[in-house]
Amino acid sequence: LDAAARRIVGWDIGGVQVKAASLAWGPVGEDDERLTACPLEIWRDPGALVDVLAQAAREVGAGGTEPAAVTMTAELSDAFRTKREGVLFVFDALKRVFPRAALLPLSIRGEFVPLAAARSRPLDFAATNWVASAMFVARYYPDCVLIDVGSTTTDVIPIVDGCVHAEGLTDTARLISGELIYTGLLRTNPNTLVEAVPLGGRMCRVAAEHFAIMADAYLLLGRIGESDYTCPTPDGRPATPEAAAERLARLVCADREFLGEDDVVDIGLFLLEKQLDRISDGLVQVLSRRGLRPDLPLVVVGVGSFLAAEVGRRLGRDVLEPAAGWAGRRAAVLPAVASARLLGSRLVEEDR
Amino acid sequence: LDAAARRIVGWDIGGVQVKAASLAWGPVGEDDERLTACPLEIWRDPGALVDVLAQAAREVGAGGTEPAAVTMTAELSDAFRTKREGVLFVFDALKRVFPRAALLPLSIRGEFVPLAAARSRPLDFAATNWVASAMFVARYYPDCVLIDVGSTTTDVIPIVDGCVHAEGLTDTARLISGELIYTGLLRTNPNTLVEAVPLGGRMCRVAAEHFAIMADAYLLLGRIGESDYTCPTPDGRPATPEAAAERLARLVCADREFLGEDDVVDIGLFLLEKQLDRISDGLVQVLSRRGLRPDLPLVVVGVGSFLAAEVGRRLGRDVLEPAAGWAGRRAAVLPAVASARLLGSRLVEEDR
Repeated sequence: LDAAARRIVGWDIGGVQVKAASLAWGPVGEDDERLTACPLEIWRDPGALVDVLAQAAREVGAGGTEPAAVTMTAELSDAFRTKREGVLFVFDALKRVFPRAALLPLSIRGEFVPLAAARSRPLDFAATNWVASAMFVARYYPDCVLIDVGSTTTDVIPIVDGCVHAEGLTDTARLISGELIYTGLLRTNPNTLVEAVPLGGRMCRVAAEHFAIMADAYLLLGRIGESDYTCPTPDGRPATPEAAAERLARLVCADREFLGEDDVVDIGLFLLEKQLDRISDGLVQVLSRRGLRPDLPLVVVGVGSFLAAEVGRRLGRDVLEPAAGWAGRRAAVLPAVASARLLGSRLVEEDR
Repeated sequence: LDAAARRIVGWDIGGVQVKAASLAWGPVGEDDERLTACPLEIWRDPGALVDVLAQAAREVGAGGTEPAAVTMTAELSDAFRTKREGVLFVFDALKRVFPRAALLPLSIRGEFVPLAAARSRPLDFAATNWVASAMFVARYYPDCVLIDVGSTTTDVIPIVDGCVHAEGLTDTARLISGELIYTGLLRTNPNTLVEAVPLGGRMCRVAAEHFAIMADAYLLLGRIGESDYTCPTPDGRPATPEAAAERLARLVCADREFLGEDDVVDIGLFLLEKQLDRISDGLVQVLSRRGLRPDLPLVVVGVGSFLAAEVGRRLGRDVLEPAAGWAGRRAAVLPAVASARLLGSRLVEEDR
């Protein structure tokens, strides 16, 4: 690591946000962490990725020549016909924006691989952001089950003796194993969680439309604030509790002329319970794996860590919330932070 | 009915299509039926409604001065904050495009009301297209349960002694009663029907994204043809079986590099079963209503009538498929046809 390149960048290139972390790094340790998350719905405009990468780099004070760790999930977007195409698209965008940087994608097996070599086996670099988070958390909690509740998905990863014990290495395998639960704090449509919700003492079927998201339920319930609602609203109206109540009312094809405050709050509480159920199902499935110590604590992270904590408490598990270090803005960009720090350690090791 | 106004128009103004029927009408009976369905995702651009109304009128050979029956469901769109606002918006658009026509919205109680009077109680004119269909079907099948499986929703309406026996008069009340099931042949997201699908002998969770719709499953299974896929594809790619298979693969975060033809066909078959279940649940709920004759036959209509027929057969019910008259293009525009014919009868009666 030469003195001029003392900054390192970590990327998490997702389907709806491009997240970056940069930090000063060297023999004296790490410092001056800078984070950003730039919105980009990649299915709307994949071509905009190059601009958003450049913008995010500026926002974390990176000049474009720093070594960069790369993780992603954007390759799943239906902007691309296959993951292969998606990974290569992301690689190409990075190369175009940062032609002089050492770009080091993290592989699904936890290795940083130079971009040129990574290009020959793109599938090893699809959906890797959880790998960075799990390897990073393993440094601090060598025996635990990591639960990362993000805006869109939830990861459940056993960590044993400081090693990541994942059964699935592709999204599909992880959806089967319970390690990936496609439900999250903000973007999840309630109609993926319930067939019906309680209303006036009866059960009311819900609309199969994009009328509301879980962010509306949590905003209405006061579990998140307006500034936590970091994704677009379904109807383009504001991220306020009042507008959220209107969106939730539409879930049962109603509006606020028909439903009172109590009605929509009850719907929100029911949805919260069902999302906790969904997370709990995946967690219990992972915990049922043979050979896992029954007293492994749960380490809960991510913007929806409070959901994982509640699930853990209900199951009678020890719950560790590394809030001091990983709360706030960091919670939403953990894979970016983690990949930067992992790469920093690797480069320092190689330097020795 | 004066001789110059021998044509009548029926409208069904939905959230994703504007449907119109026109027919020549008079003492000699009905003839020269002309139908159209113009795509309009009203939440994208409500202002475009006026242009689409004018276009649809041209397509059914209407000059704009004909008496017109009006039904709608577009008021539910989140382009409008409330149904009240939505109904009045639709009324205003009609009035603007057809200022000289007798516009006669159908009320939820089955009455044609002049637009000026209807404006004072807009909620009576929200979500009325099923009323037209049910009143029309009641003429031919005075004792039955009507099941209309549309592109987006399914209606289940008991008809007794030639009268529509609906319990719910709002969308919300109908979702509670089982008379409205928010699932349909084309636009329904599979993730509203299932939490997981079979894959390689295991169950795989599904993605909470807008990756695939039921039209993809039915196209892949050969239950519909490419020309039946009348809504936009989720990824903007073609409505072909090959592209549909790619979209279904993405439902489990996979692509066609990972899943073979058999895999996606099995997913499609599972989704078909789950949608039949969903329709069956609503039907059995409606049939459980006290006082309904246990041998009422099922009359199945709509673009997805084959789903209702299958549900009816499985339940051991008599299934009547009025295919000769209401199949093909007419299946998709039944409320428009029905409202035109109901209005025609009304005007002829008044003429006497």
